Amino acid sequence: MISEQMKTLVANSSVIRAMFEEGKRLAEIHGLENVYDFSLGNPNVQPPARVKEAILDILDQEEPMAVHGYMNNSGFEDVREGIARHLDQKYGLALGGESIIMTCGAAGGLNITFKSLLNPGDEVVVFAPFFGEYRNYAANYNAKLVVVPADTKTFQPDVEGLRRAITARTKVVIVNSPNNPTGVVYTAGTMEQLAQVLREKEAEHGTDIFLVSDEPYRELTYDGAEVPYLLKYHKNSIIGYSYSKSLSLPGERIGYLVVNPEAADFQELMGALNVANRILGFVNAPSLFQKVVARSLDAEVDVDYYKRNRDMLYGHLTAIGISCVKPEGAFYLFPKSPIQDDVKFCEDAKRYNILMVPGSAFGCPGHVRIAYCISRERVENSLDAFTKLMENYK
Amino acid sequence: MISEQMKTLVANSSVIRAMFEEGKRLAEIHGLENVYDFSLGNPNVQPPARVKEAILDILDQEEPMAVHGYMNNSGFEDVREGIARHLDQKYGLALGGESIIMTCGAAGGLNITFKSLLNPGDEVVVFAPFFGEYRNYAANYNAKLVVVPADTKTFQPDVEGLRRAITARTKVVIVNSPNNPTGVVYTAGTMEQLAQVLREKEAEHGTDIFLVSDEPYRELTYDGAEVPYLLKYHKNSIIGYSYSKSLSLPGERIGYLVVNPEAADFQELMGALNVANRILGFVNAPSLFQKVVARSLDAEVDVDYYKRNRDMLYGHLTAIGISCVKPEGAFYLFPKSPIQDDVKFCEDAKRYNILMVPGSAFGCPGHVRIAYCISRERVENSLDAFTKLMENYK
Repeated sequence: MISEQMKTLVANSSVIRAMFEEGKRLAEIHGLENVYDFSLGNPNVQPPARVKEAILDILDQEEPMAVHGYMNNSGFEDVREGIARHLDQKYGLALGGESIIMTCGAAGGLNITFKSLLNPGDEVVVFAPFFGEYRNYAANYNAKLVVVPADTKTFQPDVEGLRRAITARTKVVIVNSPNNPTGVVYTAGTMEQLAQVLREKEAEHGTDIFLVSDEPYRELTYDGAEVPYLLKYHKNSIIGYSYSKSLSLPGERIGYLVVNPEAADFQELMGALNVANRILGFVNAPSLFQKVVARSLDAEVDVDYYKRNRDMLYGHLTAIGISCVKPEGAFYLFPKSPIQDDVKFCEDAKRYNILMVPGSAFGCPGHVRIAYCISRERVENSLDAFTKLMENYK
Repeated sequence: MISEQMKTLVANSSVIRAMFEEGKRLAEIHGLENVYDFSLGNPNVQPPARVKEAILDILDQEEPMAVHGYMNNSGFEDVREGIARHLDQKYGLALGGESIIMTCGAAGGLNITFKSLLNPGDEVVVFAPFFGEYRNYAANYNAKLVVVPADTKTFQPDVEGLRRAITARTKVVIVNSPNNPTGVVYTAGTMEQLAQVLREKEAEHGTDIFLVSDEPYRELTYDGAEVPYLLKYHKNSIIGYSYSKSLSLPGERIGYLVVNPEAADFQELMGALNVANRILGFVNAPSLFQKVVARSLDAEVDVDYYKRNRDMLYGHLTAIGISCVKPEGAFYLFPKSPIQDDVKFCEDAKRYNILMVPGSAFGCPGHVRIAYCISRERVENSLDAFTKLMENYK
């Protein structure tokens, strides 16, 4: 009965579902506190107090119809202006609110971007390892996903690989920093090299190639790492931002797009994004939370909590012989599997109540993703289990 | 730069934009209170007090991570169960929460339905006049929209027209009652006849044909009109519900789908809808408002306000010689244009500060849509303007 495209996707989604069920099954046997579920990228740090205050202030001060009513499909104008001014101050830009579109999270933002830009058969380039949903977002618009293999030494995007991957049909290149699943932050040097390749290829093919940055983890960085601001590197650039992690509001589906005012056909592109927001069924980003984030621009979650989880886990895993690029952001580790078969390694780990996701799911077999956005106590308790797991491979 | 499909859509959207700008321009010249803007289906009646109470209760009683965090892509299980029980009581059904998927409004619900069901080239049947977005939603999945011409005497769906329209490629038939743009409520007799045709055609072609009901106006009915409950008429049936009008929360993007438990391949279909919610970028319906609507199941907006607007406007328009089917629901009138050219009639009306939408936009030229979800005072003040407008056609 269901569409051909969905048949495969439903089959695949049952694998994720199976992992979730396995976690529940293990929790029932061993108790929830004894299952080390590193499989989900779900923030465990509380939203800042400012969020609740903002909701209460809005309900107190503004008219209900203004809070919960329709607005332009791109979002409230004052909210868009406020975000633009915030970004201007923070990154030394000169944006106007007309560069911002409020979206249902970064996932909504990427979908309206793809809908606006992609003709069937166009190519979207991603760097392995990559968030698996990019494949589905490209397929939604009948575009072709082109994967640049991973540089497993640094997990920086492979610039020469990009050069080889670009064709006359390349319309979008996705970057994602801090990265899911590696936690690596792209350096300014990397960004400059990427932009250089795009400029050369745009000139060679006479095309516009959009660099699209998926940035839900922008605020989660450690050790003073800075995330270069995309708009400074390439004219045809769009940032998909989300408050899911920066304010721990993943269920509220609130984020925005920033479109570079120097992008090709800027006005037409903004018009297309506005229409795509409407016709894909988002209509607009949820209205109350547009106002909430506009009043919480300087609020932050306790990033240090994640950092201490990272330190503890990274320190232990490397001490017991697991090789891992030290991540400077997000809440993921992406260590090398001690055996070639990452799926088997994850299966073995379950016997020690450890749940991880095979790197194959991110286009990078031989590694595993560990999402350490869980309680410190749980991380601590998991250390012994990792030690015992590793004894199998001595 | 933008995709081919979007080019046309952006051009069309500028027509709506132009209407909006015209309203602003007229308001600047004549004052907002002297412009009779009947062009937007934007509720003007306050949300019930229960909505604000519910938000405050939730923030007070529940953990922030539970309120704002991820859940299953189909929504919170207790919310889905609560809605199922509410529907069971109200309509004498026996649903479980597994038949409900929380969505980003009805627009989100229709999009995940189409994504789940439609292969490219499949046919979606609509009855004129119809909400123009159906055309875009079908195009999102490369389906073909098939329009059954209007029965302008009653604005009930033309059952014999449906019989002629269905082919082996028909996958979905959309109904929308109370109807946008006519305000007409489909009768139980109509629903029975529609279902009978679908059963015959399913048997003839050996196919499953889904009857999909778009029901944002279900609670807005007058004169004791009852809206037949779709699930009782056809096994392959899905309802897209929204709280945009019933609780005056259009900006919050909250609604749900109800899938008939007797539908073909029910489990697989629910799996597909769940995945479609995720990969189209909705991920899940906004979490706080899932909880808000679950605590506001019996709350109602002041429907009588709309009814009194309808009575005043319908009474006056028919008195001055405008022909109109008396609507029993929604907040629209869809009178016959006194001249054949509905676009010209709308242009003429602007000279009297009256803004309406030509019926052509709904696949039914020769009529106009009047959205009377505006203040009573504005409706009152418009009556003279309508009288003067009509004097042009004597």
